[in-house]
Amino acid sequence: MAVNLHDAAYELERSIRNSNEYHQLKQMYDAVNRDESARRMFENFRNIQMQLQQKQMMGEDITQEEVEHAQKTVALVQQHDMIGRLMEAEQRMSMIINELNMIIMKPLEELYGVAAE
Amino acid sequence: MAVNLHDAAYELERSIRNSNEYHQLKQMYDAVNRDESARRMFENFRNIQMQLQQKQMMGEDITQEEVEHAQKTVALVQQHDMIGRLMEAEQRMSMIINELNMIIMKPLEELYGVAAE
Ligand SMILES: [Ca+2]
Ligand SMILES: [Ca+2]
Repeated sequence: MAVNLHDAAYELERSIRNSNEYHQLKQMYDAVNRDESARRMFENFRNIQMQLQQKQMMGEDITQEEVEHAQKTVALVQQHDMIGRLMEAEQRMSMIINELNMIIMKPLEELYGVAAE
Repeated sequence: MAVNLHDAAYELERSIRNSNEYHQLKQMYDAVNRDESARRMFENFRNIQMQLQQKQMMGEDITQEEVEHAQKTVALVQQHDMIGRLMEAEQRMSMIINELNMIIMKPLEELYGVAAE
């Protein structure tokens, strides 16, 4: 990979690392991890999410019971103030990453946009 | 989004656009699109690829007939010199994008790597 590409990527990496959004996300993440009960609740939520996503990717059926269990877990974590704020911080970071990707991927989109017609 | 994040993303976008790999990819893409028979063969190949990917994502079964048809199409495009070179250029670009993403995503990986333990 050419040096300027490498340098530009690391410059963007530093900008992400120094952004308010990243600092807030890290802060909320650390806060949840320091709180044993919050950490367990959040881990449980993430595990259920990942299991369902994996099933979807494998084309496996998701039972009504699993859907209800997942919904209960979502409702539970949303009521938890600290986890709620962590999830909001994750959403903001995720939106930023999407915006950055849209900018970076413009050259390729232009190329394939033409070909798609 | 903060100005420096935005600027850093556009700087990386410019670096991609000015890279040799992007220029080569564009050159091969344009060459294939100018050649009617190559363009059709490549479009056909891409359509078959996308259909199979969509089926996989939806968890639908892929028949033996579809697998064989896809394999024949791959063999056909690989024999085509110009399309072969386009596909090589795409692979090189794809590797670059993966490398860039790994650099950019380091801050988030660090965060979630800790949480995963
Ligand atoms: Ca603890
Ligand atoms: Ca033509």
